[in-house]
Amino acid sequence: MGNFIANMCYRPKNTNIKFSLPAVCFVWQLSMIILFGVFIRYNKESDTHWVEHKKDENISSDIENDFYFRYPSFQDVHVMIFVGFGFLMTFLKRYSFGAVGFNFLIAAFGIQWALLMQGWFHSLKEDGKIHIGIEQLINADFCVAGCLIAYGAVLGKVSPVQLLVMTLFGVTLFAIEENIILSVLHAKDAGGSMVIHTFGAYYGLSISWVLYRPNLDKSKHMNGSVYHSDVFAMIGTLFLWMFWPSFNSAIADHGDGQHRAAINTYLALASTVLTTVAMSSLFEKTGKLDMVHIQNSTLAGGVAVGTAAEFMLMPYGSLIVGFFCGIISTLGYIYLSPILEEKLKIQDTCGIHNLHAMPGVIGGIVGAISAAAATNSVYGDLGLKNTFDFTEQFEKRVPSVQGGYQAAGLCVALCFGIGGGILVGLVLKLPIWGDPADENCFDDEIYWEVPEDEESVPPILAYNNHMIPNKHANMTETNFVEQH
Amino acid sequence: MGNFIANMCYRPKNTNIKFSLPAVCFVWQLSMIILFGVFIRYNKESDTHWVEHKKDENISSDIENDFYFRYPSFQDVHVMIFVGFGFLMTFLKRYSFGAVGFNFLIAAFGIQWALLMQGWFHSLKEDGKIHIGIEQLINADFCVAGCLIAYGAVLGKVSPVQLLVMTLFGVTLFAIEENIILSVLHAKDAGGSMVIHTFGAYYGLSISWVLYRPNLDKSKHMNGSVYHSDVFAMIGTLFLWMFWPSFNSAIADHGDGQHRAAINTYLALASTVLTTVAMSSLFEKTGKLDMVHIQNSTLAGGVAVGTAAEFMLMPYGSLIVGFFCGIISTLGYIYLSPILEEKLKIQDTCGIHNLHAMPGVIGGIVGAISAAAATNSVYGDLGLKNTFDFTEQFEKRVPSVQGGYQAAGLCVALCFGIGGGILVGLVLKLPIWGDPADENCFDDEIYWEVPEDEESVPPILAYNNHMIPNKHANMTETNFVEQH
Amino acid sequence: MGNFIANMCYRPKNTNIKFSLPAVCFVWQLSMIILFGVFIRYNKESDTHWVEHKKDENISSDIENDFYFRYPSFQDVHVMIFVGFGFLMTFLKRYSFGAVGFNFLIAAFGIQWALLMQGWFHSLKEDGKIHIGIEQLINADFCVAGCLIAYGAVLGKVSPVQLLVMTLFGVTLFAIEENIILSVLHAKDAGGSMVIHTFGAYYGLSISWVLYRPNLDKSKHMNGSVYHSDVFAMIGTLFLWMFWPSFNSAIADHGDGQHRAAINTYLALASTVLTTVAMSSLFEKTGKLDMVHIQNSTLAGGVAVGTAAEFMLMPYGSLIVGFFCGIISTLGYIYLSPILEEKLKIQDTCGIHNLHAMPGVIGGIVGAISAAAATNSVYGDLGLKNTFDFTEQFEKRVPSVQGGYQAAGLCVALCFGIGGGILVGLVLKLPIWGDPADENCFDDEIYWEVPEDEESVPPILAYNNHMIPNKHANMTETNFVEQH
Repeated sequence: MGNFIANMCYRPKNTNIKFSLPAVCFVWQLSMIILFGVFIRYNKESDTHWVEHKKDENISSDIENDFYFRYPSFQDVHVMIFVGFGFLMTFLKRYSFGAVGFNFLIAAFGIQWALLMQGWFHSLKEDGKIHIGIEQLINADFCVAGCLIAYGAVLGKVSPVQLLVMTLFGVTLFAIEENIILSVLHAKDAGGSMVIHTFGAYYGLSISWVLYRPNLDKSKHMNGSVYHSDVFAMIGTLFLWMFWPSFNSAIADHGDGQHRAAINTYLALASTVLTTVAMSSLFEKTGKLDMVHIQNSTLAGGVAVGTAAEFMLMPYGSLIVGFFCGIISTLGYIYLSPILEEKLKIQDTCGIHNLHAMPGVIGGIVGAISAAAATNSVYGDLGLKNTFDFTEQFEKRVPSVQGGYQAAGLCVALCFGIGGGILVGLVLKLPIWGDPADENCFDDEIYWEVPEDEESVPPILAYNNHMIPNKHANMTETNFVEQH
Repeated sequence: MGNFIANMCYRPKNTNIKFSLPAVCFVWQLSMIILFGVFIRYNKESDTHWVEHKKDENISSDIENDFYFRYPSFQDVHVMIFVGFGFLMTFLKRYSFGAVGFNFLIAAFGIQWALLMQGWFHSLKEDGKIHIGIEQLINADFCVAGCLIAYGAVLGKVSPVQLLVMTLFGVTLFAIEENIILSVLHAKDAGGSMVIHTFGAYYGLSISWVLYRPNLDKSKHMNGSVYHSDVFAMIGTLFLWMFWPSFNSAIADHGDGQHRAAINTYLALASTVLTTVAMSSLFEKTGKLDMVHIQNSTLAGGVAVGTAAEFMLMPYGSLIVGFFCGIISTLGYIYLSPILEEKLKIQDTCGIHNLHAMPGVIGGIVGAISAAAATNSVYGDLGLKNTFDFTEQFEKRVPSVQGGYQAAGLCVALCFGIGGGILVGLVLKLPIWGDPADENCFDDEIYWEVPEDEESVPPILAYNNHMIPNKHANMTETNFVEQH
Repeated sequence: MGNFIANMCYRPKNTNIKFSLPAVCFVWQLSMIILFGVFIRYNKESDTHWVEHKKDENISSDIENDFYFRYPSFQDVHVMIFVGFGFLMTFLKRYSFGAVGFNFLIAAFGIQWALLMQGWFHSLKEDGKIHIGIEQLINADFCVAGCLIAYGAVLGKVSPVQLLVMTLFGVTLFAIEENIILSVLHAKDAGGSMVIHTFGAYYGLSISWVLYRPNLDKSKHMNGSVYHSDVFAMIGTLFLWMFWPSFNSAIADHGDGQHRAAINTYLALASTVLTTVAMSSLFEKTGKLDMVHIQNSTLAGGVAVGTAAEFMLMPYGSLIVGFFCGIISTLGYIYLSPILEEKLKIQDTCGIHNLHAMPGVIGGIVGAISAAAATNSVYGDLGLKNTFDFTEQFEKRVPSVQGGYQAAGLCVALCFGIGGGILVGLVLKLPIWGDPADENCFDDEIYWEVPEDEESVPPILAYNNHMIPNKHANMTETNFVEQH
């Protein structure tokens, strides 16, 4: 039996997904339609009954509709998910289609499935329906972010079908751990350091560990950037960086909560840029900067300030968090990534361990400490209650206890990420998903109709006949030889 | 006479627009200044008298200014117009300057002319002035969207002067059909499936039909993408996709109207992505994905949900619309576009028939059906009145009748698009506009100073002296020859 | 002594910044943390005490928090700073890393230092603390914009350490001149034509004048664009263009002020595009368009309408401003830039004199005239008071006097820009900053690990061993020689 599995796993790879990809897309999308038909309805603020609801509740103006509190942040988050994550991964010389395109595919599926999964856990009303509004859309985007982070670890090494499976399970696991952390433990995590980044990163790393490819060296020549692919990746980096304040404040409390979360994130990110640049220059042989660090480590501060973004972290506190994350993340790229690959057999294409995993854990710890250290004198009586939602069954909870629950939340995220990742990795190891052979990784040719690239034709020969460059190349070599 | 015209039409092409382009730009811009001076004023919410108006009307806060309801959506729409449409068309290997640059030019002219044309029809006050605010700016952007869609059909085949003429007439026709559809027929069309997409697409297709080039094959080698031009195009695709919820909700009713329109669009678009990917893989020989489909068909759901975005389409309804549009649009690229070109002589560079025309018509039909099916039990009495504006002279209208008027609106959009396009196409056929010859289509060289591209310099020679590559190239060739 | 300095200035350049760059980043970031710890606190609207403040002040809803008035504009401004300015400068064929990366670095440092400097001058409260909220974040972004404009003049010719020094002093000077112009003179400058653009541009031009490189010709082959670098630059152009209405309205008065500023900017920019295109075509030999003009001069209208954006400039007034700025800016690129370089010895890489300096001065003048011409009949009594803040010690000021103060403000901006630039230029002339030699300007190789570009590897040799192309290249050369 083990032999049978081993055989299956090592037979020549078939990357033709002409049947499996359409089948999965159609079946799953049809399921979504049916499940949405049964479960999903508009909530009070997006339903035509809003006019009546407004009267009943004495709401003075349409501007009080939650839409106006959150829509600008929602759109920023949406840009992060589709352009930010998508373009950040275009850095490989020949995997830009896969980076942007598969990111697009799995996010589009993931947000639908997330609306259902998160809805069943969080917003199922007495009528057995999930009522959605702008906040649910943001949460769906957040949920998908976890899966896209995981995609970073396996970028270029899996098929789109595997990615869809990974997203199906990822969203499911996410919704459960989120429910445990936010509802059961009543931990706070506005920017998702724990719920999104820690979970997503360890989920991806564990999958990558299970899917370890000992002969990945065969694709080494494709596992790198070219000049303009690095520029494309900076589009992703910058949109993530700029809109991160919206990410961390999107579902924070109305008023001061959103306001403070945006400020803290803005500052943490600014600080990270300086220490990333410093470390990148300091640890390269000749003091030159490395684009990999600038593209990734500059974002670490945003990850790490996620949990505490809503708290009274203080402006200098945010700067400190960003300061250390820039250092740690860059060091991770320089020293830790090679170790992870060689010793722990974790091949992490985008280095999500340095950008999401470590900063996510730091963010969880910062959140736990700053929650435990919260005092009435800093927050005000009302402010403390408000910020930590010490209401209803949690009315008696105090900051020091809250700190403990925050730490517990971090552990839950870690366990779900690692455990879930290993299980899903085993599923993805089945040889039925159409993943590429070791020598075809990081190459768009496998899953995309790639246009013949005029510029990659050998130019001299192009003057003669640009359709058969290889033949000519050999001819020229022959001529050289003959002359000797 | 016919002979004379025929002669004029087939004499050698002169693409020098050194006189005509500046002349058109200056004269039209000066006309805009004069007409704005005579007609355009700030409205009550953007005028300094707002402080007094606020008092008179008992408006409690500046946040009730329409600016705060619509500005975030406006900026998103603005991005769609300039980056979305502009970059979507950069997919051609050597027409990116023309795609982004001419898109920029015609949009910048179009929004000014649209403010006037739409103003004369919709917001002329008793004082004979057009009062503008944020909603008028959004509408101007919308109006221009119609012309940019039409640009997609003729991309690479016309001169900037022709594009400006096309925009002048396009905006004019738009304002009239919009007035008939929205005011006279009192149809609803928040996202413009009919008013913008159906009209714009058939306008462009008809023009392209009139301007049919039997020898376009001569430019065949330029009518395709290269690797990184496809990545640039994805910037356009994604910004259109992400901000489409803002497009469909930008001028919807305050409160639940905007909220619901955003949700419906978000869902329809997500669904479209999955069916587009499925169809693209299913109908390519080896199951590989085609970037053309991903760049375009993924947006069809946003088009088709435009009219009904504000209605109680229900979340699953939005998914269903997106589901079918992804399928139909991708099939259009695979089967219909070649037929259109060969049989109907319509050369549609960007495939707007698949992205805007068919989904636009579907959107109009979905709108008519869902309006006709609206009931008090779903909408609530107040909600129904509110959503369909059954007030004043339309107080007695019922949903079933509204459905009929919606269908009538679709016909109006079709007639204006096709009829207007044929007329404007005839004007553009005059041989005075500086359009390129058949062998120079899809080439930026005609209208732009294109930088010498370093990467196309023969690299070996570049090591010797890359300032005069051609000279060396010749020398080297000589050496080769001498040695034989 | 003079000899010693001369010697120091002309010894061979050492561009190794392995010590200096990390040192500056670390020390400055640590200083920021300490200074933030001492000085910076949340303001009333971002502090947890907001709930209490709301009660005390009878604020009815969280939506009245300044966050909701300004956050959408803030994010747009943020995009302009990081993507807009960053990508606008990617037009050089091999300086995209430096353009986007150093822009990122100096902006991230600058916003922190600006919060402090502007805070000390503007928002120091009785408790000796600077209270920050969303408006302060926007102002910090604005302040950095001045330094990024200056970067445009020296792009490709300075080291990142020099840029950081330039930013340190630039922000400092900015905060002082801003305080004089806005607080002491009580001039209005919502969009910063004077405070940001005039100051920033002359600051950069003066620095470039002091750092004049007589032998810059040696890098001439790198001082130009390639096809796709021009497309990347259009990303910058378009995001600046689209979000400029947010820039000019971000800190305008709530309500009509923001609304009107957005409208005026939208119109001025539209008008500029047409005259830029017209001039570009008219003054090129064959009527072709030049990407340099489209990338830059199309933005001039946004600069020039900055000061008067909030005033009752009237829609046609905005169009007129844009009309002339498009013409002047394009003419500047064609005629003035070469003169500046040859006669005045000012090497202005991005042509900021045409995009920021001249339009900025025009903006200041337009502001002065339109302020002086303000009347009660146009503005209304309350509106006039409101728009120009004729309150407290300025209660008695009248429009004609205000016009004079506006003009004085313009002079202050000019003096600070030129004077400050010369002084800082002298500091930057010290040979300790690691700037590149004349033959290495405009080249990312100096400060970045540039990926070996597959496409620039000699293709024939690439078939043998693409890891050591240079060795092979030499071998080939040798062979050639031997054969003779």
